Amino acid sequence: MKLGVCYYPEQWPRTKWADDARRMAELGIRVVRIAEFAWSRMEPSPGRYDWEWLDEAVRTLADAGLEIVLGTPTAAPPRWLIDQHPDILPVAADGQIKNFGSRRHYCFSNEAFFEASRRIVTAMAERYGQHPAVIAWQTDNEYGCHDTILSYSEASRRRFQLWLAKRYETVEALNRAWGNVFWSMEYSDFAQIGLPNSLPTLANPIHMLDFRRFSSDELRRYNWMQVEILRAHSPGRDVLHNFMGFFGEFDHHEVARDLDVASWDNYPLGATNTVRFIPEADRLKWMRSGHPDIAAFHHDLYRGMCKGRFWIMEQEAGPVNWAEANPSPLSGMVRTWTWEAFAHGAEVVSYFRWRQVPYAQEQLHSALNTPDDRLDLGGEEAARVAAEMAGIEADPVGQAKVALLFDYRSKWITEIQPNGAHFDFYGQVFGYYSALRQLGFDIDIVPPDADLTGYSLIVAPLLSIIGEELVERLGKSGAQIVFGPRCGAKTEDFAIPEGLPPGPLTRLLPIRVTRVESLPPEATVAVQREGAKAGETRLWRDFVAPGEGVVVEARFEDSHPAVLSRGPLRYFAGSFDAELLKSELARAAAAAGLTATPVTQGLRLRRRGRLQFAINYGPDAVRVPAPAGSRFALGGEELTPANVAAWFLPENRDVD
Amino acid sequence: MKLGVCYYPEQWPRTKWADDARRMAELGIRVVRIAEFAWSRMEPSPGRYDWEWLDEAVRTLADAGLEIVLGTPTAAPPRWLIDQHPDILPVAADGQIKNFGSRRHYCFSNEAFFEASRRIVTAMAERYGQHPAVIAWQTDNEYGCHDTILSYSEASRRRFQLWLAKRYETVEALNRAWGNVFWSMEYSDFAQIGLPNSLPTLANPIHMLDFRRFSSDELRRYNWMQVEILRAHSPGRDVLHNFMGFFGEFDHHEVARDLDVASWDNYPLGATNTVRFIPEADRLKWMRSGHPDIAAFHHDLYRGMCKGRFWIMEQEAGPVNWAEANPSPLSGMVRTWTWEAFAHGAEVVSYFRWRQVPYAQEQLHSALNTPDDRLDLGGEEAARVAAEMAGIEADPVGQAKVALLFDYRSKWITEIQPNGAHFDFYGQVFGYYSALRQLGFDIDIVPPDADLTGYSLIVAPLLSIIGEELVERLGKSGAQIVFGPRCGAKTEDFAIPEGLPPGPLTRLLPIRVTRVESLPPEATVAVQREGAKAGETRLWRDFVAPGEGVVVEARFEDSHPAVLSRGPLRYFAGSFDAELLKSELARAAAAAGLTATPVTQGLRLRRRGRLQFAINYGPDAVRVPAPAGSRFALGGEELTPANVAAWFLPENRDVD
Amino acid sequence: MKLGVCYYPEQWPRTKWADDARRMAELGIRVVRIAEFAWSRMEPSPGRYDWEWLDEAVRTLADAGLEIVLGTPTAAPPRWLIDQHPDILPVAADGQIKNFGSRRHYCFSNEAFFEASRRIVTAMAERYGQHPAVIAWQTDNEYGCHDTILSYSEASRRRFQLWLAKRYETVEALNRAWGNVFWSMEYSDFAQIGLPNSLPTLANPIHMLDFRRFSSDELRRYNWMQVEILRAHSPGRDVLHNFMGFFGEFDHHEVARDLDVASWDNYPLGATNTVRFIPEADRLKWMRSGHPDIAAFHHDLYRGMCKGRFWIMEQEAGPVNWAEANPSPLSGMVRTWTWEAFAHGAEVVSYFRWRQVPYAQEQLHSALNTPDDRLDLGGEEAARVAAEMAGIEADPVGQAKVALLFDYRSKWITEIQPNGAHFDFYGQVFGYYSALRQLGFDIDIVPPDADLTGYSLIVAPLLSIIGEELVERLGKSGAQIVFGPRCGAKTEDFAIPEGLPPGPLTRLLPIRVTRVESLPPEATVAVQREGAKAGETRLWRDFVAPGEGVVVEARFEDSHPAVLSRGPLRYFAGSFDAELLKSELARAAAAAGLTATPVTQGLRLRRRGRLQFAINYGPDAVRVPAPAGSRFALGGEELTPANVAAWFLPENRDVD
Repeated sequence: MKLGVCYYPEQWPRTKWADDARRMAELGIRVVRIAEFAWSRMEPSPGRYDWEWLDEAVRTLADAGLEIVLGTPTAAPPRWLIDQHPDILPVAADGQIKNFGSRRHYCFSNEAFFEASRRIVTAMAERYGQHPAVIAWQTDNEYGCHDTILSYSEASRRRFQLWLAKRYETVEALNRAWGNVFWSMEYSDFAQIGLPNSLPTLANPIHMLDFRRFSSDELRRYNWMQVEILRAHSPGRDVLHNFMGFFGEFDHHEVARDLDVASWDNYPLGATNTVRFIPEADRLKWMRSGHPDIAAFHHDLYRGMCKGRFWIMEQEAGPVNWAEANPSPLSGMVRTWTWEAFAHGAEVVSYFRWRQVPYAQEQLHSALNTPDDRLDLGGEEAARVAAEMAGIEADPVGQAKVALLFDYRSKWITEIQPNGAHFDFYGQVFGYYSALRQLGFDIDIVPPDADLTGYSLIVAPLLSIIGEELVERLGKSGAQIVFGPRCGAKTEDFAIPEGLPPGPLTRLLPIRVTRVESLPPEATVAVQREGAKAGETRLWRDFVAPGEGVVVEARFEDSHPAVLSRGPLRYFAGSFDAELLKSELARAAAAAGLTATPVTQGLRLRRRGRLQFAINYGPDAVRVPAPAGSRFALGGEELTPANVAAWFLPENRDVD
Repeated sequence: MKLGVCYYPEQWPRTKWADDARRMAELGIRVVRIAEFAWSRMEPSPGRYDWEWLDEAVRTLADAGLEIVLGTPTAAPPRWLIDQHPDILPVAADGQIKNFGSRRHYCFSNEAFFEASRRIVTAMAERYGQHPAVIAWQTDNEYGCHDTILSYSEASRRRFQLWLAKRYETVEALNRAWGNVFWSMEYSDFAQIGLPNSLPTLANPIHMLDFRRFSSDELRRYNWMQVEILRAHSPGRDVLHNFMGFFGEFDHHEVARDLDVASWDNYPLGATNTVRFIPEADRLKWMRSGHPDIAAFHHDLYRGMCKGRFWIMEQEAGPVNWAEANPSPLSGMVRTWTWEAFAHGAEVVSYFRWRQVPYAQEQLHSALNTPDDRLDLGGEEAARVAAEMAGIEADPVGQAKVALLFDYRSKWITEIQPNGAHFDFYGQVFGYYSALRQLGFDIDIVPPDADLTGYSLIVAPLLSIIGEELVERLGKSGAQIVFGPRCGAKTEDFAIPEGLPPGPLTRLLPIRVTRVESLPPEATVAVQREGAKAGETRLWRDFVAPGEGVVVEARFEDSHPAVLSRGPLRYFAGSFDAELLKSELARAAAAAGLTATPVTQGLRLRRRGRLQFAINYGPDAVRVPAPAGSRFALGGEELTPANVAAWFLPENRDVD
Repeated sequence: MKLGVCYYPEQWPRTKWADDARRMAELGIRVVRIAEFAWSRMEPSPGRYDWEWLDEAVRTLADAGLEIVLGTPTAAPPRWLIDQHPDILPVAADGQIKNFGSRRHYCFSNEAFFEASRRIVTAMAERYGQHPAVIAWQTDNEYGCHDTILSYSEASRRRFQLWLAKRYETVEALNRAWGNVFWSMEYSDFAQIGLPNSLPTLANPIHMLDFRRFSSDELRRYNWMQVEILRAHSPGRDVLHNFMGFFGEFDHHEVARDLDVASWDNYPLGATNTVRFIPEADRLKWMRSGHPDIAAFHHDLYRGMCKGRFWIMEQEAGPVNWAEANPSPLSGMVRTWTWEAFAHGAEVVSYFRWRQVPYAQEQLHSALNTPDDRLDLGGEEAARVAAEMAGIEADPVGQAKVALLFDYRSKWITEIQPNGAHFDFYGQVFGYYSALRQLGFDIDIVPPDADLTGYSLIVAPLLSIIGEELVERLGKSGAQIVFGPRCGAKTEDFAIPEGLPPGPLTRLLPIRVTRVESLPPEATVAVQREGAKAGETRLWRDFVAPGEGVVVEARFEDSHPAVLSRGPLRYFAGSFDAELLKSELARAAAAAGLTATPVTQGLRLRRRGRLQFAINYGPDAVRVPAPAGSRFALGGEELTPANVAAWFLPENRDVD
């Protein structure tokens, strides 16, 4: 467990550098990320490199005993490169070119940019790859930020056609797989295929899905180019990328396969005040603490990427500048967020940023220090964490008993075909995660192809495609398994499976989803268990015909099945309200032999090795569920708001 | 009365065709529509036709005793045609080209497309025009769907200039008619005139209106080209087009003059969950039954087009996939909708579609059969209708006593100049229709140039242009006549008439509308009759100065006239609330000697010949207003929700 | 004090002109504005002028004793000019060209348009400059209406680069000033710099601010060209422009420096029903009277431009046609608005327009006369004003005791970086103005560089940039001074000032704004004075660290300072609710020795010389605060709704 910070020496007078480095070290900072966005200073004109300033910056930081993460600067191509190759600029869905003047103004499919990136990354890696203070590399910055995964450029179009030719081999195969006979959309040549933007009405959903797959692959290809160079020139260093929260425009599991560490940028208030699937009243309630499950969700998600290794590359240290509303966090939250990240297994928590920059786009984004160089509130809390860390040893996190299956393709599929304007993929998945957290469980969020051994409860809130191989592994897992609605609803080719959803899963759970319905946000359908109302569904319903051996455990008010089970498998046929979801998941957990520790609304629990952490997001002090006589590493039995406690578990207690 | 179904043999393996045909016939289907959207299969490459598959499909269906409607495939031009003539693609108001990849990607003004359409329609008509099983032709599909009437292409611009030259003869005349002296908009040549999109502020409203007229004429020209070919090669067959609901971007009355039958696509739930002039609470209330007046409104509208002949070409058979929310219909509604269509005089009710297609854009659109080939809920209800039809003979519908005047130009005029963001043409017209239905009347919806003989009550909710000739006919009609606000507000050139609105109508009803006001949705103005509040107006008010002989029957709270009359003519000077509208229309009906049969909110009535139908859209069982001892053809006195009853009227009773 | 009217002879038959002129004069109209928008009639084809009609119009009006304001017709370039130079058309932020067909279809940076404007203005000025009836000229019409200040054309781009080169001299200086090192946005040549539209994410805020400054300068350059010509050819006549309400896309103070009179177009209902910072409930409440402070705000703003000289060039005379809802004004409001304008010092109130034009874009915009040539309600009220004016002599207005500092750059800065989606510049400023008005004060709205001598209370609701020079003048003013939040937050280069906000102001008021927060609209933070809740803040908070000698007068609930003071300076650290704002401003006023006359919600006061006016916007009759025995020039002690009273002040009473 280390604290870090993001720092941009090029943005400050050199006279400040040594003092900054000294103050970082004094504060307890051990890791510092630099250099991302500094392309115009590294290569001021084509092929002319200027390393002098960066040499000095690296030396200054290293001299203060800091470990350095170097970011490649490719998220901000310099003006001269755009002048040389204007077609680097990405193209929006409406055909408009996105101009120079901010960042991320490049198309992943553009070859000139690919080669320019290769050159700058190589030059940088050659120069600093062996520097002893350099412990890691970050590729680019926040891939996809500002909606920059999909580019509707000519280069995208050409490479998409090649990608399709590779995937389908013949255009006849593509026509068949896509079902292009519908509306005479058939092609006779791959060169005829355009991008799925600006059509009179919806494109074929598989056309859109394949364009998303292609775009994700393009990004992976681009990132892999950087990784290969960095590995070659900087052996032994970790290569990572800083991912974002609630962002799924590319397949992070795929990209993370090529990295050593998955890091992410944790802005709990920015997220809470932005994400639309959280009801307005809740956004208001948590506006100064962050929603209690947003940070944890991503910790658990990203821990599932690179064999458990994850960092917080950017940690919110005060108000941000980019959400619709940017409130100041409650006093104590910066410290609490930091500890929560460590509780979930983070190796490094690195604050964004050392000092608020008084000019340009992010001038109202707070930092550890104010622009006039005094420690701000977040800086004081970071110092407190650093002091507390001294006495606490980091244990390995260990595997949880509950796995939540998460799949980026399902997000794309659901977005391409919501079939109801208010149905939201993240809303659905996050609802399950939050319910499990409120039952007090530790959760691993894993991809569908993860090893499922060792889990007692596996939850699949929305897995659009369920293939034979997954059915096989689920069947052998020995776990209780819960499926949410719309699971198994599609084939790889974005079609309804033969024999109806949930497709191959029917081998284990013989049901037929004969129709689906979406509901307006105000509509509800009651769910009944043993004749009494148990809750209700909103937004979505599957109409399910149960097959042999399937038990209908609960029914909708019009008698269609709401919860079905067969052996260890359960199917929830609607978007249940939070309480119903919690009670139905509690039944599954009980069947799995797990003991829930239900928590009050703002309290959350997370175990790391011998330490049991408790976090209080709520407005009132609460008593933590520590056994009498527990020894506390942080805090005590009474936990005030915006605070964290941690106590040692009895040594012989099982992880659950 | 026949049942039909939409079927796409090209989308299914040939091995299924014979079985499908057999099952259709067994279910009671008599008519099957095929071939629309199959251009890429009929003409796989330029000029090379492949009729083999269609020959077999036609033969297979005919062999099962089914009657065939052939759709021309022009709503889905194939890729090769777009490759040959990329300027076929239509252009959006923002200048963006609408690309290939869905449907309706053509501009009506493009000559290459016109000629290609002529060739494929001719080829198809030559091949199947005389086939004994072919009973009708459908031109294209849903003209204008996905906002495809107006195309801002170069071809449109050129042909619009020619259209203007023909209409105005000289550019001086155009300048005069348009009032181009205002803001120096004068032209010296027709070639200078552009399309009215993308201007700093509003275009001249007559510029916009003429562009709408032109666009409607372009469509009519295109449709007439198809009709002529079909009539020439397929004598004795009906030619129809499938219109849509609440869609008025072209003049359906004009286009229907060229057809034998007006058909329309009836999706009550899709419409209810989409149309914005229905308040949200009502959309929620009727989300599973459809609003009780939406289907009926269109039956009555389309029955008024082709001498009473109309079909339902596509009948919703379960949840659709295209509304903001897509709930499943109440059990019974598919059957009930079907009977309601027959009650209003439909010759054929054809379900969309035989089997849900598991791939492409409409994979979540339900059908009579699920993708795995089992009869779905809608299919079961269709079978029940088929069984019930056996015992019921179809009478002619006959003329109603109440006529509602409907005019597409008025929709364009109101949209071009709403003068209040929330004023909606359909909201206004539909309000009158619904009020009359709730009074229990049968209604004919007719164009302003219809023969008005025989009506006792004529209602004009919003007739923007009232010419001398109509005034003449109204004056001679002998009927009670009601006008809503904004009637007679414009000349043919989109100007305020000389002497103020209602223009020539002042001959019969000497009033002057001296000013208008639009109100925010929350504002109301009370209406008083004899000093007591009778209701209120929302959204709109005309300020009316009564002339000689005009009686002010009701006043707004600030004493401006609200209801004025002179002899059999009444003028309503605001958008009255539903109850006020109903009571004022009831007065007019009483004056016309008509007896109202007010119904509870969900019940609706419609007579067809000797049979009086009653439909229950509401959530509770109701008693139908059948005379004691009536003989029932369907159901009985007690009518459960989502159900229909029909009883024989006494033979000597007058139609009213 | 004179009444005027807008008249467009070219839009009416010549046969009407003489009668129109006679009726105007009879009504009491003394001034008539003509000729704007008539370019296509003055110059029907390139270089061919037709003055005959305008000669006659001028003669006819002059013969009736009317004084004439001539408008230059450049807001409506004719079609032939666009044909000659299509690049005159402006370009929207999304790159779309704004086409011919309405008005304002020109780009200020286009040289061809500049020259064509020079020619027509010169020709017009030469012909009519010395005509004895011509008393004034209006340049163009409503600069910027329909969002036409910013044009993203090639011409703009080129001239913007020149403007930048002039401002910054070297590109290195620009890079430094803009902070382009951030995100590698550095340039090596001015020719590389684009316009700040269509970027992946936010442009550098100084990039946007400089583009706004440039665009404002371009407009000023264009206007000055017209002014110079008019001054040269028409000596002794006033040159004015008709500005708009709540429109700040260019710096009106700068443009007004070049004019003799600032006029504005007063549409109280249009504004009230359009402006979004007024809560919906209030918009509804005032929908027929106009919000009680909107007209006054602009009177006081524009009186502050040209040494106190201002006109109402267009006065709403009935419902307009361009707001979301266009209600009819309360009976009496047209007269009341007119008198309120005179009370604030207007020299002329000129109604828009003489007669409603029955065709083209504004056909539903009411006027003094209906299209059928009868005096409408507004016309009757104008006649009443004319009669009343006969007995009232116009005094000079005199300086108020309260100054409100208003700065267009602050609007741009706040819009470029709201840092909270709901924070609105006008909402903030107008809130202060309204609070002061409700305290009964007369207010001067002046630019920050105005002479501040003689004011007792200076209020700066939102002054983003506070330079040394202003601090100097404020310090010497002797007045009580109030600053709202975000004051002094930026440097000229759109950066946070060294030492944090409020920058140089800290010399007088040593505080540091260490962070800011924006809040969702529903969130509030309580403000406490002496332990009791005094009100609350919404939307915005500054976090302030008080320096030496600063008194924290009120605190937020979490103990951060809410109101701070030092000597005569006060800083409000949040967007206070209306009541709190009023009570805090009342404290400052009391400290300044001013006596408030708090008024009920709908009543408003304004003194002009010896006359004290009172206006009743509210729904109930009120008693005006006239001393017993006052002599009334208008009305009396009891003031009915939509009415105005005026009484003579005691001669020895001080202005306050």
